[in-house]
Amino acid sequence: MDRYNQKFMEKAIQLAKENVKSGKGGPFGAIVVKDGQIIAEAMNEVTPSNDPTAHAEIVAIRQACRDLKTYQLEGCEMYSSCEPCPMCLGAIYWARPDRVYYAGTRKDAAASGFDDDFIYQEMELSPEKREIPFINIMRNEALEAFKDWDESELKIHY
Amino acid sequence: MDRYNQKFMEKAIQLAKENVKSGKGGPFGAIVVKDGQIIAEAMNEVTPSNDPTAHAEIVAIRQACRDLKTYQLEGCEMYSSCEPCPMCLGAIYWARPDRVYYAGTRKDAAASGFDDDFIYQEMELSPEKREIPFINIMRNEALEAFKDWDESELKIHY
Repeated sequence: MDRYNQKFMEKAIQLAKENVKSGKGGPFGAIVVKDGQIIAEAMNEVTPSNDPTAHAEIVAIRQACRDLKTYQLEGCEMYSSCEPCPMCLGAIYWARPDRVYYAGTRKDAAASGFDDDFIYQEMELSPEKREIPFINIMRNEALEAFKDWDESELKIHY
Repeated sequence: MDRYNQKFMEKAIQLAKENVKSGKGGPFGAIVVKDGQIIAEAMNEVTPSNDPTAHAEIVAIRQACRDLKTYQLEGCEMYSSCEPCPMCLGAIYWARPDRVYYAGTRKDAAASGFDDDFIYQEMELSPEKREIPFINIMRNEALEAFKDWDESELKIHY
């Protein structure tokens, strides 16, 4: 196992507990660490901010990137009080920190009524068979946008 | 297949093309529709906003929820110029629109150099074996936050 700093995870869990105690949001906290320093810390803010994407990991990633003035988190580590849901896992892959430490699991989240495990299961189904149907239409028209991208001299790859 | 409105998808694809033409961001556009009206439209803004989570779908969901003053999109449909990546799929499940129409596929995105398909593959691996390792530590400590949540009388479930 990689070395980790217990104090960073204690901080993430403390944020989760504070969020429950204040009634602000779900039992989730996350921090981003760079060079041994916390550069972002966040709690789940879905209900107070009317933003279903405001999970602790997403809020922390956005904050860290804003402060670092970059859209990449190379050289950073994330500590999350719970296993990231598919949304947050995807966000982590796009932000590309070096590694992620998590404490609670998707099953623990499910036991407290959260959809994390359900969403992981839904992703394995073919798109049109999901509880929220994903329906593929007009693919040929969309390919033009990718062709434009491939030929663009202005593009910044991310 | 569910009925869909071709003009809505044409609009999403038009947003994707405009984004490439202006050099602002990736070849992706998305809109949210409610009661036959567009209530949010967005382009990929990752690089100009230094926000790796600013995919078109995420930006559109956040905008729609902000305007509707809710964290749920029941009764809404999403049109995306491309199959949502795992991050956006997760966001869609948390926002809970009725259905999603998409045009390009994850393979089309991969052919233009985007990680969507790679991330879908990574999710199927056990957490510690991924290219970005996900390492489980201190689970027992995290369970206290879930216990607090279960017992909380202040909580708002989402």
